[in-house]
Amino acid sequence: MKTKQIVLASRPNGIPTLNDFRSENIELNDLKKGEVLLKGLYYSVDPYMRGRMNEGKSYVPQFELDQPIEGGVLATVVESKSDLFKTGDTVLGALPWSEQMIASEKGLQKIESTVESLTYYLGILGMTGLTAYFGLMQIGKPKAGETVVVSGAAGAVGIVVGQLAKIQGARVIGIAGSDEKVKMLKEEFGYDEVVNYKTNTNMKSTIAKLCPNGVDVYFDNVGGSISDAVIENLNFHSRIALCGQISLYNSTEIPMGPRIQPMLLTRSVLMQGFIINNFQKDFPEGIAHLSKWVNEGKLKFTETIVEGFDQLPTALLGLFKGENNGKMIVKR
Amino acid sequence: MKTKQIVLASRPNGIPTLNDFRSENIELNDLKKGEVLLKGLYYSVDPYMRGRMNEGKSYVPQFELDQPIEGGVLATVVESKSDLFKTGDTVLGALPWSEQMIASEKGLQKIESTVESLTYYLGILGMTGLTAYFGLMQIGKPKAGETVVVSGAAGAVGIVVGQLAKIQGARVIGIAGSDEKVKMLKEEFGYDEVVNYKTNTNMKSTIAKLCPNGVDVYFDNVGGSISDAVIENLNFHSRIALCGQISLYNSTEIPMGPRIQPMLLTRSVLMQGFIINNFQKDFPEGIAHLSKWVNEGKLKFTETIVEGFDQLPTALLGLFKGENNGKMIVKR
Repeated sequence: MKTKQIVLASRPNGIPTLNDFRSENIELNDLKKGEVLLKGLYYSVDPYMRGRMNEGKSYVPQFELDQPIEGGVLATVVESKSDLFKTGDTVLGALPWSEQMIASEKGLQKIESTVESLTYYLGILGMTGLTAYFGLMQIGKPKAGETVVVSGAAGAVGIVVGQLAKIQGARVIGIAGSDEKVKMLKEEFGYDEVVNYKTNTNMKSTIAKLCPNGVDVYFDNVGGSISDAVIENLNFHSRIALCGQISLYNSTEIPMGPRIQPMLLTRSVLMQGFIINNFQKDFPEGIAHLSKWVNEGKLKFTETIVEGFDQLPTALLGLFKGENNGKMIVKR
Repeated sequence: MKTKQIVLASRPNGIPTLNDFRSENIELNDLKKGEVLLKGLYYSVDPYMRGRMNEGKSYVPQFELDQPIEGGVLATVVESKSDLFKTGDTVLGALPWSEQMIASEKGLQKIESTVESLTYYLGILGMTGLTAYFGLMQIGKPKAGETVVVSGAAGAVGIVVGQLAKIQGARVIGIAGSDEKVKMLKEEFGYDEVVNYKTNTNMKSTIAKLCPNGVDVYFDNVGGSISDAVIENLNFHSRIALCGQISLYNSTEIPMGPRIQPMLLTRSVLMQGFIINNFQKDFPEGIAHLSKWVNEGKLKFTETIVEGFDQLPTALLGLFKGENNGKMIVKR
């Protein structure tokens, strides 16, 4: 049986382009015992994928040249030689960018949706929500009355972080890249204040004004000069959860900036880089909390859903131009 | 009664000079109830004092212009109107750079020496030893078999850190600024390997060679390009105890360097700035461990003792030129 997949055609130098991807038709093998034939429903598109396109060893395995890109996918079971899944089941897994695919039953998770939209399992109840939850709760540890600043606030993770910080009783300041995003974060997601960094001319003093008691927690999704401005306003004993550095991912040279260690030293700051797998043993706790808040209506979520399997590369590139509100998903 | 004190004459711009200090004779007041008249014995001279010479608020109070410099001082009680101290007692306190001084009984600690040298209470059993102990044990947390790198290894804190890491069963690599220091650290203080950063031409690859399993703990006393070289070699889940940044203290502009967040992020690194006061409640535990190791001969200590009260400013300036081996102390 034939299907279409999207492979990594070349390793990008700097900002990826559509030429770094290639669509191709392949023949699927026959189904073996313990395998299922899946048809993709929704494909997750995430900033961390840029890192996997590079060469060299990292702590997340790199994509291989001429092999399909891989990510979180929600899929329907079309045919099953597994005792665990039957035709019609919905499953979640780390799967290739392919319209249909054969997958081992191992590593697939059956989804019986208890929330409004199936796609939530790629977002608020998936890697995105868990990243926000553990970064904020286990590194940032906001206390009621403290001030939390979130960069990339309108991104998939940022939207969740802000709401979680509000649930903890903190004051929440966001940084985002358009007036529409500013409005959305304040009106729909409960951010106390949001700055548009693209039109602001003095981020350091703006952050200072919006955070009259200083910054206690900085949840950093973007890095670069935005982070410099926040770090200048950190309080003694503040915490930085280092979640993403999307402003630097496409750098071809080592980016330079002010040295931050003297400030972190004199203010006894904690900075912790993390990937979500570090918290794997606590996932059930995280999913339980997030589901509860979602069903109580305390935790809202927004998605940008792009239609069409062929749009996967374009959707991924869109992340680096800030074209998404919240979680970016492609519907086959 | 007259005595001599050394005051801050001007706030240095960049590297301090002798002109930033002034010696003056003053008249001491009469002793009041609860006070003691002290004669200074030994004066501690420490890198953090440079920060206190600056203007502006910080988390350690700044020295005031035309007021005496203050620091850790061991002194003898000459006259007492306190019920806690009698003539002839030895006390430790945060006291002015003055030959004699009147001090409140509050904040003074009576010293009944159980170790070889009284000066140890300014060093290995004082702020220096406690800084090494808590930075390493509560932030670095080295496990047996791990690799610990210490910058400023021949400084007062660095000498202790290396020995404590060896006691924990770690492999210890030092970075120091002369061949004499390299020799001393290896032969006298048990460092496994030490690099002379002043003659080394490629620190990054030298650290890589000396740490074939990568760096698990980095105890940073110096910052700047030395730290850049170490950070490139950090392992997944490694820890940085941010103790000092002496290479940057005299900068008049914000120092620039490679942005470190992308590396800390992908390797899930913890970086924690600290000052010793953060651990105040645990001081008794720290002093107990350190005294035990000192008396068992497992923990050696070296001091540079400069003779003469008038040498205090010169001794302080000497710290920034690397003229000390271990703890710098001035004997009145």
